[in-house]
Amino acid sequence: MNENHPSDGTVDVDAAVVDTADDIAEMRIRGAATIADAAAEALAIQAERSDADSPGAFQRQLRTAAKTLYETRPTAVSLPNALRYVLRGMEGETVADLRETTIARAEEFRTDLEQAQVTLGEIGANRLRDGDVVMTHCHSTDALSCIEAALEDGKEIEAIVKETRPRKQGHITARQLREWGVPVTLVVDNAARRYLDEADHVLVGADSIAADGSVINKIGTSGLAVNARERGVPVMVAAQTIKLHPDTMTGQTVEIEMRAEEEVLPPEERADIVADAPNDDGLSVENPAFDVTPPRHVDAIVTERGQFPPESIVTLMRELFGETTGEPWEV
Amino acid sequence: MNENHPSDGTVDVDAAVVDTADDIAEMRIRGAATIADAAAEALAIQAERSDADSPGAFQRQLRTAAKTLYETRPTAVSLPNALRYVLRGMEGETVADLRETTIARAEEFRTDLEQAQVTLGEIGANRLRDGDVVMTHCHSTDALSCIEAALEDGKEIEAIVKETRPRKQGHITARQLREWGVPVTLVVDNAARRYLDEADHVLVGADSIAADGSVINKIGTSGLAVNARERGVPVMVAAQTIKLHPDTMTGQTVEIEMRAEEEVLPPEERADIVADAPNDDGLSVENPAFDVTPPRHVDAIVTERGQFPPESIVTLMRELFGETTGEPWEV
Amino acid sequence: MNENHPSDGTVDVDAAVVDTADDIAEMRIRGAATIADAAAEALAIQAERSDADSPGAFQRQLRTAAKTLYETRPTAVSLPNALRYVLRGMEGETVADLRETTIARAEEFRTDLEQAQVTLGEIGANRLRDGDVVMTHCHSTDALSCIEAALEDGKEIEAIVKETRPRKQGHITARQLREWGVPVTLVVDNAARRYLDEADHVLVGADSIAADGSVINKIGTSGLAVNARERGVPVMVAAQTIKLHPDTMTGQTVEIEMRAEEEVLPPEERADIVADAPNDDGLSVENPAFDVTPPRHVDAIVTERGQFPPESIVTLMRELFGETTGEPWEV
Amino acid sequence: MNENHPSDGTVDVDAAVVDTADDIAEMRIRGAATIADAAAEALAIQAERSDADSPGAFQRQLRTAAKTLYETRPTAVSLPNALRYVLRGMEGETVADLRETTIARAEEFRTDLEQAQVTLGEIGANRLRDGDVVMTHCHSTDALSCIEAALEDGKEIEAIVKETRPRKQGHITARQLREWGVPVTLVVDNAARRYLDEADHVLVGADSIAADGSVINKIGTSGLAVNARERGVPVMVAAQTIKLHPDTMTGQTVEIEMRAEEEVLPPEERADIVADAPNDDGLSVENPAFDVTPPRHVDAIVTERGQFPPESIVTLMRELFGETTGEPWEV
Amino acid sequence: MNENHPSDGTVDVDAAVVDTADDIAEMRIRGAATIADAAAEALAIQAERSDADSPGAFQRQLRTAAKTLYETRPTAVSLPNALRYVLRGMEGETVADLRETTIARAEEFRTDLEQAQVTLGEIGANRLRDGDVVMTHCHSTDALSCIEAALEDGKEIEAIVKETRPRKQGHITARQLREWGVPVTLVVDNAARRYLDEADHVLVGADSIAADGSVINKIGTSGLAVNARERGVPVMVAAQTIKLHPDTMTGQTVEIEMRAEEEVLPPEERADIVADAPNDDGLSVENPAFDVTPPRHVDAIVTERGQFPPESIVTLMRELFGETTGEPWEV
Amino acid sequence: MNENHPSDGTVDVDAAVVDTADDIAEMRIRGAATIADAAAEALAIQAERSDADSPGAFQRQLRTAAKTLYETRPTAVSLPNALRYVLRGMEGETVADLRETTIARAEEFRTDLEQAQVTLGEIGANRLRDGDVVMTHCHSTDALSCIEAALEDGKEIEAIVKETRPRKQGHITARQLREWGVPVTLVVDNAARRYLDEADHVLVGADSIAADGSVINKIGTSGLAVNARERGVPVMVAAQTIKLHPDTMTGQTVEIEMRAEEEVLPPEERADIVADAPNDDGLSVENPAFDVTPPRHVDAIVTERGQFPPESIVTLMRELFGETTGEPWEV
Repeated sequence: MNENHPSDGTVDVDAAVVDTADDIAEMRIRGAATIADAAAEALAIQAERSDADSPGAFQRQLRTAAKTLYETRPTAVSLPNALRYVLRGMEGETVADLRETTIARAEEFRTDLEQAQVTLGEIGANRLRDGDVVMTHCHSTDALSCIEAALEDGKEIEAIVKETRPRKQGHITARQLREWGVPVTLVVDNAARRYLDEADHVLVGADSIAADGSVINKIGTSGLAVNARERGVPVMVAAQTIKLHPDTMTGQTVEIEMRAEEEVLPPEERADIVADAPNDDGLSVENPAFDVTPPRHVDAIVTERGQFPPESIVTLMRELFGETTGEPWEV
Repeated sequence: MNENHPSDGTVDVDAAVVDTADDIAEMRIRGAATIADAAAEALAIQAERSDADSPGAFQRQLRTAAKTLYETRPTAVSLPNALRYVLRGMEGETVADLRETTIARAEEFRTDLEQAQVTLGEIGANRLRDGDVVMTHCHSTDALSCIEAALEDGKEIEAIVKETRPRKQGHITARQLREWGVPVTLVVDNAARRYLDEADHVLVGADSIAADGSVINKIGTSGLAVNARERGVPVMVAAQTIKLHPDTMTGQTVEIEMRAEEEVLPPEERADIVADAPNDDGLSVENPAFDVTPPRHVDAIVTERGQFPPESIVTLMRELFGETTGEPWEV
Repeated sequence: MNENHPSDGTVDVDAAVVDTADDIAEMRIRGAATIADAAAEALAIQAERSDADSPGAFQRQLRTAAKTLYETRPTAVSLPNALRYVLRGMEGETVADLRETTIARAEEFRTDLEQAQVTLGEIGANRLRDGDVVMTHCHSTDALSCIEAALEDGKEIEAIVKETRPRKQGHITARQLREWGVPVTLVVDNAARRYLDEADHVLVGADSIAADGSVINKIGTSGLAVNARERGVPVMVAAQTIKLHPDTMTGQTVEIEMRAEEEVLPPEERADIVADAPNDDGLSVENPAFDVTPPRHVDAIVTERGQFPPESIVTLMRELFGETTGEPWEV
Repeated sequence: MNENHPSDGTVDVDAAVVDTADDIAEMRIRGAATIADAAAEALAIQAERSDADSPGAFQRQLRTAAKTLYETRPTAVSLPNALRYVLRGMEGETVADLRETTIARAEEFRTDLEQAQVTLGEIGANRLRDGDVVMTHCHSTDALSCIEAALEDGKEIEAIVKETRPRKQGHITARQLREWGVPVTLVVDNAARRYLDEADHVLVGADSIAADGSVINKIGTSGLAVNARERGVPVMVAAQTIKLHPDTMTGQTVEIEMRAEEEVLPPEERADIVADAPNDDGLSVENPAFDVTPPRHVDAIVTERGQFPPESIVTLMRELFGETTGEPWEV
Repeated sequence: MNENHPSDGTVDVDAAVVDTADDIAEMRIRGAATIADAAAEALAIQAERSDADSPGAFQRQLRTAAKTLYETRPTAVSLPNALRYVLRGMEGETVADLRETTIARAEEFRTDLEQAQVTLGEIGANRLRDGDVVMTHCHSTDALSCIEAALEDGKEIEAIVKETRPRKQGHITARQLREWGVPVTLVVDNAARRYLDEADHVLVGADSIAADGSVINKIGTSGLAVNARERGVPVMVAAQTIKLHPDTMTGQTVEIEMRAEEEVLPPEERADIVADAPNDDGLSVENPAFDVTPPRHVDAIVTERGQFPPESIVTLMRELFGETTGEPWEV
Repeated sequence: MNENHPSDGTVDVDAAVVDTADDIAEMRIRGAATIADAAAEALAIQAERSDADSPGAFQRQLRTAAKTLYETRPTAVSLPNALRYVLRGMEGETVADLRETTIARAEEFRTDLEQAQVTLGEIGANRLRDGDVVMTHCHSTDALSCIEAALEDGKEIEAIVKETRPRKQGHITARQLREWGVPVTLVVDNAARRYLDEADHVLVGADSIAADGSVINKIGTSGLAVNARERGVPVMVAAQTIKLHPDTMTGQTVEIEMRAEEEVLPPEERADIVADAPNDDGLSVENPAFDVTPPRHVDAIVTERGQFPPESIVTLMRELFGETTGEPWEV
């Protein structure tokens, strides 16, 4: 398989690929869907402009391009997904065939991506009945697209919106829902269990989804899901397939970002707490951005490819991205 | 039993009783322990100063005094407890005996009350081992007294303190613990489940405790308890016996106070959320002060009378306050 | 303790006691409350008419009377309860004292019994809030008294009534509720889990209650309780204290009555089933009248003495009936 | 993809297709397997008789035929399954190839269907050991085929048969089992939990199965499954793949049929219940035909393609029917 | 209360008390029941021989005697129980009365103790039905007495006996059961879950029982109880009241004895394991004698005073031993 | 399909195949991986040396060879897996093509097999974090390879090793871990629950894995998994894909080997137990080698193809081995 490996230094990638890589690295291109789209486009440009004179050379170029793109932000879950998906479509015995299939695959990926949230929303909306009350956590456009589609289907939906400390993204959710005319009850996160008795669904998005069916999402999701199971309320996760985390198929755990203390405790409040303390060291603040919800507390993951029990999502991951025991550019 | 009923209008109560009643009604006397103490003292004064010339008259006076006190704040759980406890000690065939036993009983109640938190703390501390990590919710002097006693026993204790939105009383807890030199990790309420893996105990106070073993405490307690059970962490409730709610023995449910919306959502944030909404009516905020944790999610209730499984607390209630099918002054 | 044992054959019991015993044995006196009342009355008569010339002789007579009554229907749970309760009140050093206390105790028992269902109803009603939906199983006047009292308190209550095969006592419940104007939804037992999502309470009576907190009630109760827990709906058992089964304090299990096959399968339906069978032996019908619900699936037992978690009911049993390691007449 | 859409009005379908459609609509063809078989046959006839002169025209004809058939009973789960399965096999670049592949695919479907129940029975029988006791709910030929195959393997099987109110299809099951010589114990549905202690398996069929692993089956199945989990008895669902509900892959929930009140409550019994009611409106009867059992309460779904944990059944659905984001005729 | 405290050094205790204390300290008197009996006897002797000339002096002597006895083995649960029980019966205004009541109380305690195991056995036997299969863990004469009584009642009982590593006390149990003719199936501890499907009860003894309902018993009990709950098999703990641990009422946790490594790993086996290790330090053996089973995994505690749900045992402890916030000699 | 069936007696298999079959039958070739490797090699030799003159004849020879190999040890899970895998790769229209593809497929299988444990170890290691404590049961080279790979990644790992009665294979695990320098705490199986509080993972191997997600592994695994769930500790099963049991896809249950009594109870210990028994028949020893852990108690199965929730493993089985409704040689 050696000839398929990018030989660093000797294979040139197109300038457009380098530009895209720079833009991703510098955060000029950001957001899961935007990054994925740009990466697929870059590979298509690379395929189009390639001057490779042999199939092997063409493949090396494409893999080098993929590697270049990947290394800008290896923890962005949608980036390797885009690369894997496109490279898995690179097929043929001639340069022309390889070029054509690669470009077509990139095109397909980008078209699907554009449609994905709408399609996901329609699928998720099918789980909601007229008159249902939905409890939300944090802010997720995938989750909101389900409610939007349900409203378009003429269903009446009400929402109980958790404010989602520390950053209160629940306010963004509430604002969007109110814009659509959805009646909203805002509660602090601590009040969730009490109001679960009035909810028909818990509906959240996902930061990423692991092969063992775990859902990585905004801190507080797992505690909510445990309570929802105890109260008999089904939990529905809305997540496009670019959120499926292929590295987890090989056992990788998802690194949880730890955010700044100040989000939780502004300096003046900290000063107040430690005012009479013997020293200042003994007070720490832990501020993880996400937590991990095991599959047994989730009822369905809704993607643009359909809904899945969390225990089956690995099958979709294998279908879309292959077995992924290698690096993204080695598929 | 008619002669034991206070005959309104015809029986005078001592001026001191009236003053105490006024002070409770006007919130000049407040706080569960302070109210209970004042009520017991008032009954003792009534007993001391009574000019009753027959046992029946004496009893009528005392019951009228109790009724007067009770009606100032019928939802304050410690008030009827104090009244019931003292009146249950009023025994004897003569006015002299009735006076003596009533005064002694009131004295006993007040002495016990003064010692209660310290004793409770020592009992609760016995459940904590050297090196344990305790997760707290809200602020409770009963709960803190357990940690204080453990520190006095020479145990090292660490704390994970939930901030406890909306009012962040966790900051008060953190401040007290830091003053005692306890290492504190502060987290948002949403992060509780993640940090339960590092906790050896969940330790909370109680607003009141019901006969069916339910614990009424600061909103968020029940959701925390459900997660603690799921994570295998025992839940310990620290509550003096004046928090036992005798009315619940007869099935009464505890009324949950709904607090002001502004605590959760300041006007400017509200304005932001509804900025693009078709109307302003669709956004409500629910801000319950407390929630109800069923006994199956609690491992022990620690009182100054010892520790109890929550399912057994009714036995202690019966022992202290009787069967309570009647009004507090009818015991 | 020998002198306290009834010496059969040598001690006469009053003719009225014998008559009552006969009436119970012949089912002329039936129903838990009626039997208990008659037994207590018979003991009072025996006490009144006793010609005993020594305290020991008096006690022997009373115990013999109790034994005579008990042996008519030893499995009727309310019968030994009445006997134990009255005999536990027989106190004093003289025949006169023994007579007086016994009669007073019997009187107290009968008065309490008369009031018990009403008091129980008021206590149970306190657990119901205005607008609640209650799911019922079988027919129980104790359970219905809770709804009746709630209606009298001005609360609106709706009911989901399980028909309760095989004898469809749910129809009796439905009829009573409709008479009171309560909106009723009738469902087959199989539909219970589906409609639990719309219920705020499961409310049932009890045939008897065991010292380990188990509730023996109409077949189907335990399956309903398991589902109620899974759906997050609290289960409330309404049962007067005469239903507490003292023998279970000493580990006795409650014998479950097996009823006639025809209640489940009329002969013509049976004939149809076995029409093409190789033989007729292979089809049996099991028709138990009751089943056993463990305490962990019950939230509260409501009695006229207050409400109790099922795990605490043994305390009430000990309070009312003593330790019961002996026979009912040996208390 | 426009050219693949049936253009209503301009494309003729064969008269045989129209006849089959009529027969399905008029319920002359009924039963999941019979409908599926007829639909596949109709597509084969359409393929055989097609006079299309271009591949596009042929495809349009077939899709129009499928649409015609589908619209007769869009809620019959086996109908779209048959259509999707056959159309997914329509492949080729020429009319001849398209015809051949379509006919072959239809043939394959029909052959498989004929064998499906026998194969399923053999697979299900493998889960049963000699001497096992099986508890059944309702009547299902798929479930019975497992017992039949076990008997043919020489295993001794006993059955506890729930009568399954309101329609008592348990009697049909009992009759079939007795015909095979299987010892049967018939119980009312309320007695299920008690007899679960004597059962080694719960074995039921399915009305349909959803992509999230939920099993839609005769009302009472979900309550039984919850109790079986609590009692430690595994639950096995026997269902041919024509019961897999492809629409649920896109989030659709299965509509639950509500049946006539009289099945539950004959008019004379109703009259009796409302005899003393203030009005007749307050009594309603809810009679849902099915309920939904979540996958966590089911251990295995047995199909003719093998056994699956319910959480994996979506994989089989995708394999057989594709992603189904479009209509059945658009596969 | 000062006058009730033993004033060390100035109050003499009888030589017999000193001898008994020595015998307990030197382990010449050992075993829970034997220690308790000796302690009660010693107090009776002290009472009998006391030369106190005032009630206060008498009480001081008795308390000093109790303290002397207690301090020999403060962790032996039955010792403080005996002391508390006897001293709680010391009542009266004169030396004569105090002497008489104390002696009578000690006598009562000793008589009860002698009968306790038999009575407990009869109560426990009532929970066993003819034909039941009982799974045992370790060796407990209290547990065995239940089986013995059941056999005497003519019931057929079978046993599944866990061998109970590391010391295989299951062999002692098996030997006793075989002596009684009970069919025994011996299994390793690892096989317990598999054979729970064939068991009707789990029956174990207790080293001690805590006020929060926890059962301290031979290591492995808690894991067995968790599996028994999961398999639907009830767990019954047989324990005389001398096993109730009064210190736990005030929150004390029970110290778990850690036993010698050699019981688990003989030196030659250890040598084999570390043969190729870089060093010998990295292998440790943990050998706790007991573990703690929370009340939610236990169905009933059977004592000679009746059976109790574990959550109610604190009530019995309070009844027998008082509130125990003081030392055993201060009751 | 008749022509695909081996016609016994008339089709010769190569002598090398017969030799391999003999070696497997005589246990000269043993161990899951060794058997699988030998079987694949034998098929490759058969393919290479075949003198078949038609594709049909070639296929018949290969299938006969497979059948010959299979029948030597039909319960060895890896044997049919190897045969199915290779035969599924036999493709082509000519003898040359069939030979080439078969040999290539056998080669692929053998190469993968050689790499499988290392790859599995790397995947499993990804689930372990630096500093984690792992609890093990029995001895599994697959499980150990995960720890080995974690150590190679520079992570510090500690182990709690259950001794695993009756054969104490935990000692082998402990020895290996100590050789690698891993700190080991050895405990008896009974102590597992107590030490789960200190473990971050339970890590076990598997004897085989069933299509319904059940894990068949050394006796004691299921009880450990139930406790791990209750304590909140994730359970990870390490198993190469040759352990996937294809027969279970068609419902077959895995036969559990019952081993010799002497492993549990040496004759001298038996003699001791029955010394005073009325007869020797009443003592039996049950010694199952394995037990079955349901998927709901397992968090992930780690294979060389990636990690899977147990509920999804059937998908991998179908991918690798096909639908397996036929015999291994009929794929």
